[in-house]
Amino acid sequence: MSSSPNVYAVILAGGSGTRFWPASRRLRPKQLLALAPGVAESLLEATVARLEGLIPAERIFVATGTHLAADTRRALPGIAESQILAEPVAKNTAPCIAWATEAVLARDPSAVVVVLPSDQHASDPAQFRRTLALAIAEAERGRITVVGIVPTRPETGYGYVKAGEQRSAGVLAVDSFVEKPNLELARSYVESGKYYWNAGMFIFRAGDMRAAISRALPELGRGAAELARSGDVEAFFASAQSISIDHGVIEKLPELSVVPGEFGWSDLGSWESVWELARKDERGNVAPPSAVLIDADRNLIVDLRTHPNPKEPPAAPPVVALVGTQDLCIVHTDDGLLVLPRARSQDVREVTEALRARGRTDLL
Amino acid sequence: MSSSPNVYAVILAGGSGTRFWPASRRLRPKQLLALAPGVAESLLEATVARLEGLIPAERIFVATGTHLAADTRRALPGIAESQILAEPVAKNTAPCIAWATEAVLARDPSAVVVVLPSDQHASDPAQFRRTLALAIAEAERGRITVVGIVPTRPETGYGYVKAGEQRSAGVLAVDSFVEKPNLELARSYVESGKYYWNAGMFIFRAGDMRAAISRALPELGRGAAELARSGDVEAFFASAQSISIDHGVIEKLPELSVVPGEFGWSDLGSWESVWELARKDERGNVAPPSAVLIDADRNLIVDLRTHPNPKEPPAAPPVVALVGTQDLCIVHTDDGLLVLPRARSQDVREVTEALRARGRTDLL
Repeated sequence: MSSSPNVYAVILAGGSGTRFWPASRRLRPKQLLALAPGVAESLLEATVARLEGLIPAERIFVATGTHLAADTRRALPGIAESQILAEPVAKNTAPCIAWATEAVLARDPSAVVVVLPSDQHASDPAQFRRTLALAIAEAERGRITVVGIVPTRPETGYGYVKAGEQRSAGVLAVDSFVEKPNLELARSYVESGKYYWNAGMFIFRAGDMRAAISRALPELGRGAAELARSGDVEAFFASAQSISIDHGVIEKLPELSVVPGEFGWSDLGSWESVWELARKDERGNVAPPSAVLIDADRNLIVDLRTHPNPKEPPAAPPVVALVGTQDLCIVHTDDGLLVLPRARSQDVREVTEALRARGRTDLL
Repeated sequence: MSSSPNVYAVILAGGSGTRFWPASRRLRPKQLLALAPGVAESLLEATVARLEGLIPAERIFVATGTHLAADTRRALPGIAESQILAEPVAKNTAPCIAWATEAVLARDPSAVVVVLPSDQHASDPAQFRRTLALAIAEAERGRITVVGIVPTRPETGYGYVKAGEQRSAGVLAVDSFVEKPNLELARSYVESGKYYWNAGMFIFRAGDMRAAISRALPELGRGAAELARSGDVEAFFASAQSISIDHGVIEKLPELSVVPGEFGWSDLGSWESVWELARKDERGNVAPPSAVLIDADRNLIVDLRTHPNPKEPPAAPPVVALVGTQDLCIVHTDDGLLVLPRARSQDVREVTEALRARGRTDLL
């Protein structure tokens, strides 16, 4: 696969999840953590690396918040500072993509843009790139295109894209978007073979998106046009409506395409999914080599403690020992320790809520 | 209760348990840890404090190992250095008590000695002292006396003392000593009302113990006599037989007394017993106030992490958070973290064995 000179990426890296406490914090959100199996780099770095051969660094824009801009730049030294779009205030994805669209159009009026989340995993990057190439080709025909993940289970936590007729090899019309279903509906979606997970990946010609925004959200369109003239990012975000690109624009379009993708996708939504993806020992444990595991099954140990001198790691690392535990997550940082059954991974946010209620914002 | 001027204590503080890893280490054994509920001092300090009003510091000897002598002195600044008996090599309790007996006799030929373990708990210290006072009075009549703990459950982990006829108010003859029973036997012992736990507390006139050692272990008796003349502790321990005072001397005596005691005794034998004794919240958790507990029941959290500057503890302490866990022990030190179900507390030694097998003696 060769790189087309007019294809750009816009990576959305403004998230501030609380689902990975104590590893994740407001200033160290999920995309800056190395949560993917066997990968020492952050999810954001892995997202950029996954585009290698398809979109080079000089055509990758990264949208983030001003509070994360410095760490984002540090994580991505190959991306020019002018390509880091630091939002002064979070206004959901529509204003962000409107800005990115104008930034890309200023570089290339014929640009095709691939919008990607920064905090997902793909175990088959080559297949991921082949899927994107199909979607890019479809976008070049003038249809805004979404990647639809072929579902592997009746997941109730995601929105689905319902596909209609086939348009070309590997490309289908979008019939409709559906919200998170209940379990029964989710089962019928998976069985039908017509529904895909909406993973938040959109591909479009920048000019098409500019026009779509102007039609669906005319005020935002005018603001973006003014931004393109003035360069006044502060003023644009101060007045911009807070709305998602999905609800505000994409779902209102009459002509959308979907390219189904099967590339070992995971949204890494919780410690549970970190465990699911990771390489396990013969008893299903995911643990550092220093751990002592006695009668322990299917546990996840994440040890992120630092030591005073990072240049001289201790010859004898601290030890985590488990005796007779099953299906626990244990996450260890310098200032926090979390212990919970893997099945309760979704409830990490109750901890962050409790810390907020106690005024422990230093830990958030 | 007034203090008799010829009553001495000998506290046995040479232990090196592994049951409290990662809190306990070879150089920080159980008696130097603050494991008792609501008590900031170590078990050893609490043992000394429990004698207040009965035996003053100037008549308390502490037997320990040379490797623990400095920390033992630091823990007990009120005890003169000459009263810290530092054994150059561990030879079980008989040589240790032979030495202590000679040391006390050199101070007072009429001395009565109370031998006490250093790592136990008594929730009712006044009752503990009343029990000792009875035993001291019996020892002064010339009979070596043991304290027998009135059993509260059919414990299979302790040896028992079987009592015979009553000798005086609160004093019974010892019929025999019995080894750790099986559960059925233990139940019958408790039901009979004639059996008491042997907690390793012995009370005797020093001269009686010197004579008893010379009869039961003549070689040790000759060694002790030589030690009394020469003061050569190294030579005494180099040649001394390694044997317990129980098996070597006490159990062979024809005339023993037992004073039953009920003073909220616990041997604090494991993390489980630390949890049992400690004050709990309404859901049975034992945890520092900073902990976040969500849907958590009957857990024990012990956080012994230090911070770089002990004089300026952090305003915001590290947080341990539990979500949906039941009956877990979580013990946290700078270099170790242990997680296990409370019911598996006895298996902590498997961790220390695994660490030894890996050469991680730095953690032992």
